[in-house]
Amino acid sequence: MSEITREKILETAVALLRRHGLSKVAVTDVARALGMSHGNIYRHFASKADLLDAIAERWLHTVTEPLQAIVEGADPAAVRLEAWVLELMRLKQHKLTDDPELFAVYHSIAEAARGVIEHHVAELLAQLTRIVSEGNAGGEFTVREPAQAARAILQATFAFHHPALLSQHRTPSEAEARAVVALLIAGLRSGAL
Amino acid sequence: MSEITREKILETAVALLRRHGLSKVAVTDVARALGMSHGNIYRHFASKADLLDAIAERWLHTVTEPLQAIVEGADPAAVRLEAWVLELMRLKQHKLTDDPELFAVYHSIAEAARGVIEHHVAELLAQLTRIVSEGNAGGEFTVREPAQAARAILQATFAFHHPALLSQHRTPSEAEARAVVALLIAGLRSGAL
Repeated sequence: MSEITREKILETAVALLRRHGLSKVAVTDVARALGMSHGNIYRHFASKADLLDAIAERWLHTVTEPLQAIVEGADPAAVRLEAWVLELMRLKQHKLTDDPELFAVYHSIAEAARGVIEHHVAELLAQLTRIVSEGNAGGEFTVREPAQAARAILQATFAFHHPALLSQHRTPSEAEARAVVALLIAGLRSGAL
Repeated sequence: MSEITREKILETAVALLRRHGLSKVAVTDVARALGMSHGNIYRHFASKADLLDAIAERWLHTVTEPLQAIVEGADPAAVRLEAWVLELMRLKQHKLTDDPELFAVYHSIAEAARGVIEHHVAELLAQLTRIVSEGNAGGEFTVREPAQAARAILQATFAFHHPALLSQHRTPSEAEARAVVALLIAGLRSGAL
């Protein structure tokens, strides 16, 4: 029952945020919409910040989950690396185009909840580190520090998935993402890092 | 005399923008500060938009000029490429940290003046294309389409110089930029593009 309530609170909060925006939704509004006391909500979330953290985490999980499936696939590391970048690009761009208002809300929650973003970035880096390490093990790559290479790959592909850039005027193409990934993969094979 | 007046108008406009922000400065304010009629200003700039374009162009020129010196240097292409990226990163970051208010004004002018930004990006791409082509000619690189590679390099280094990312919480380090550039250079050598 408690998990159901928690989910219900999160869903209701998202619906309210979507309609009224981040600054205008208080914990009491969520409680009122659910017909429960705000004390009941505080049993699940210690504060509005806590509630927003949970919303941001849930949202970011819808990004990392399909990426994890790619990481765990059987393809060569170079193939998985390209698929991972292209999927990250698609997921972020779809979120922006499908629901720009909600994207803005989520983006500002994520920005405010620094710890949540740091955790998300750490997850993405862990996925990339695993692909690079497995590429080393399989003889595809010759990378001395997979964690350093993972950070370089994430930074080098910001143009295609960073929320602060996605809302810019010019949307980069998938062909452009493939070109960058091709350079990076060649770099991973070369022993440059 | 006309060029001096033009410069004087630009300088005065920048000083006013810095103090009052973009939305609160009108052409008549610039005229008043200079003790001239606003008709006099319209002899040099057709509109406020025109004046802002000129300010943005002048600002962006202070970025491309030192980069051009690197492009025209005698070092191997790979060395110039790394120096170009690191210098672009330093120039943009210094502009942000030295004068964040003016950076915000310039950034919003540049954003509004789409044509000016497009021209700036075209200049940066031309510089990179030249480095890549000279790298091909000198036997360092084996790039089939230098213009495509130039775009990939610019996009792959957004993390280090894109204005929309520079004001984010975490400033990337020069070591991180060097790691990305090392991967890209290895890619340019490998025939991946």
